[in-house]
Amino acid sequence: MSKRAFNFCAGPAALPEAVLQRAQAELLDWQGKGLSVMEMSHRSDEYVAIAEKAEQDLRDLMAIPSHYKVLFLQGGASQQFAEIPLNLLPEGGSADYIETGIWSKKSVEEARRYGQVNLAASGKDSEFRAIPPQDQWRLDPKAAYLHYASNETIGGVQFDWIPQAGDVPLVADMSSDILSRPVDVSKFGLIYAGAQKNIGPSGLVVVIVREDLLGKARAACPTMLNYKIAADNGSMYNTPATFSWYLSGLVFEWLKEQGGVAAMEQRNRAKKELLYGYIDGSGFYANPIATPDRSWMNVPFRLPDERLDKPFLVGAEARGLLNLKGHRSVGGMRASLYNAVGLEAVEALVAYMAEFEKERG
Amino acid sequence: MSKRAFNFCAGPAALPEAVLQRAQAELLDWQGKGLSVMEMSHRSDEYVAIAEKAEQDLRDLMAIPSHYKVLFLQGGASQQFAEIPLNLLPEGGSADYIETGIWSKKSVEEARRYGQVNLAASGKDSEFRAIPPQDQWRLDPKAAYLHYASNETIGGVQFDWIPQAGDVPLVADMSSDILSRPVDVSKFGLIYAGAQKNIGPSGLVVVIVREDLLGKARAACPTMLNYKIAADNGSMYNTPATFSWYLSGLVFEWLKEQGGVAAMEQRNRAKKELLYGYIDGSGFYANPIATPDRSWMNVPFRLPDERLDKPFLVGAEARGLLNLKGHRSVGGMRASLYNAVGLEAVEALVAYMAEFEKERG
Repeated sequence: MSKRAFNFCAGPAALPEAVLQRAQAELLDWQGKGLSVMEMSHRSDEYVAIAEKAEQDLRDLMAIPSHYKVLFLQGGASQQFAEIPLNLLPEGGSADYIETGIWSKKSVEEARRYGQVNLAASGKDSEFRAIPPQDQWRLDPKAAYLHYASNETIGGVQFDWIPQAGDVPLVADMSSDILSRPVDVSKFGLIYAGAQKNIGPSGLVVVIVREDLLGKARAACPTMLNYKIAADNGSMYNTPATFSWYLSGLVFEWLKEQGGVAAMEQRNRAKKELLYGYIDGSGFYANPIATPDRSWMNVPFRLPDERLDKPFLVGAEARGLLNLKGHRSVGGMRASLYNAVGLEAVEALVAYMAEFEKERG
Repeated sequence: MSKRAFNFCAGPAALPEAVLQRAQAELLDWQGKGLSVMEMSHRSDEYVAIAEKAEQDLRDLMAIPSHYKVLFLQGGASQQFAEIPLNLLPEGGSADYIETGIWSKKSVEEARRYGQVNLAASGKDSEFRAIPPQDQWRLDPKAAYLHYASNETIGGVQFDWIPQAGDVPLVADMSSDILSRPVDVSKFGLIYAGAQKNIGPSGLVVVIVREDLLGKARAACPTMLNYKIAADNGSMYNTPATFSWYLSGLVFEWLKEQGGVAAMEQRNRAKKELLYGYIDGSGFYANPIATPDRSWMNVPFRLPDERLDKPFLVGAEARGLLNLKGHRSVGGMRASLYNAVGLEAVEALVAYMAEFEKERG
């Protein structure tokens, strides 16, 4: 078996090695039961215990208040882009959206198919290199909800503050920064996150929703997209993505063992300080994002000449530094520093960047 | 490590041991690349090759004509219950449905939320113990499509024939019998199947759809539920359920090695003949389904006295015969005999049934 690489993929992303080892050990025979978790009925005592423990561990990690439901659904964040208006935006109503990059833009486009969207603020004027400050937002106090993406995976901007939504339910796409640091769930009406960055395998999306927001779905909402039906059935209206849910549970256990989200915040801070610090000091690499809005999770950076991109990537791969190529819409490089990417991975990356700069700079 | 059990679960169901062993071997390091399939970008060369090979192997196995698209989606068959009318039933149009049990009934209920359903036939009069013959169906020649479930997982009835739909597109829920024997795909407009019986892990649904049926989705259809968008993006409009897709690909490879669906038909025939033959000959166990309509995949059976159910199940479990309890809506027992359940499992079950009958009969 070859060495495990350092994987900076934006998603599906690196998983903790200890989690994969445990999944591997029990893949054919979970706890001596003679079958894989993948082969268990979702209604079996064994699987229900796995699913409930995963939910409880997530509740513990995020200190989710008891009047919130935690749902383990399918279809990723992109399906949520429709599911949110179908459940929360009444016919004839309006919702506020903040546009800070490609993902929030997609959420706006999908919501517009279901009703009035008030684009309360956009980072467009800064080419999405900064998050518009809240005092410039044009919020509608009668909005059905206020939606934003706490971190833009592609652009590399991140809110380091929680918007003030008053009585309007605050809805956040936390796909790429959930569990990376503490967040006060009680400030939100709904939080959602595709699993494939900080949670587990793709094919799962976690929705944390305040109970009073349930039961308002439109008549045309598909049963499988109705939050209340999912909540009333413990996310088992039909067969859920059982293995992804189980594996996410192993990640939650691992996070607790590591000291929870407070410990993750410390680590993630150290990681991003090391990388941004190196980039800013180099004069060779550059990150375009306004300093206070820089993402801790996704660090896009450029080399001084595009023709260096390919040799940089080839050299990186030879050193076991994988998936550093930037998103096709942005170009350049991107290093994603999710929870499962250790400080040693960032150290190895910075060492290689320094080596490359020395050689080519 | 304890012995692998014989797993008769209706779904999520047994997977081939060889497939699990391979997934286990490469779980932390796929082909020396230093990362798990779960950790790969769905847009990486490696993953795209995995995904394309899975699709090609499925095309080979089912001899899917080139004018059909194969989609790897999320949300299970239950989400398809909405997705089908949202894509194929025009506003003001009508669709024909055949009701043969709990699953087709659910598909009818969901379709009614989107338009006119003509219940062309129902097995209700026979308490769903038989499939109404086609000469009794009240088909609408102008129907947008004709929908049926080729196998009812809970009731244990199965079509051993393909309905004649004329020019009306035939739509089949094959969740619980896809790949169990050859089927002429060219007779269908659309075939769908939740993965967790004969394909792979839950959280994936395969849709095989004739190209001319694409592009007719309603304006209100969520982007993620639009077949054309999925087809145009190779099922990667957003991040798909990558690990489930990969594992399904391993199952397809295994099926090809076993001789494909023709070999599966032989095995499955031998399995069901052994079990039904034993039940019918016993005078102790009983299966209520009309003989020509008996499912090869799901065999419900009863003991002469409900009070024997528990001791039967306890004894079965002690012998490593798992998940024989019938669905809560039906009671009694149910043995699911999907492709990954070998003849030796059915032999072990029959031997135990004979032993139990001798002791308690």
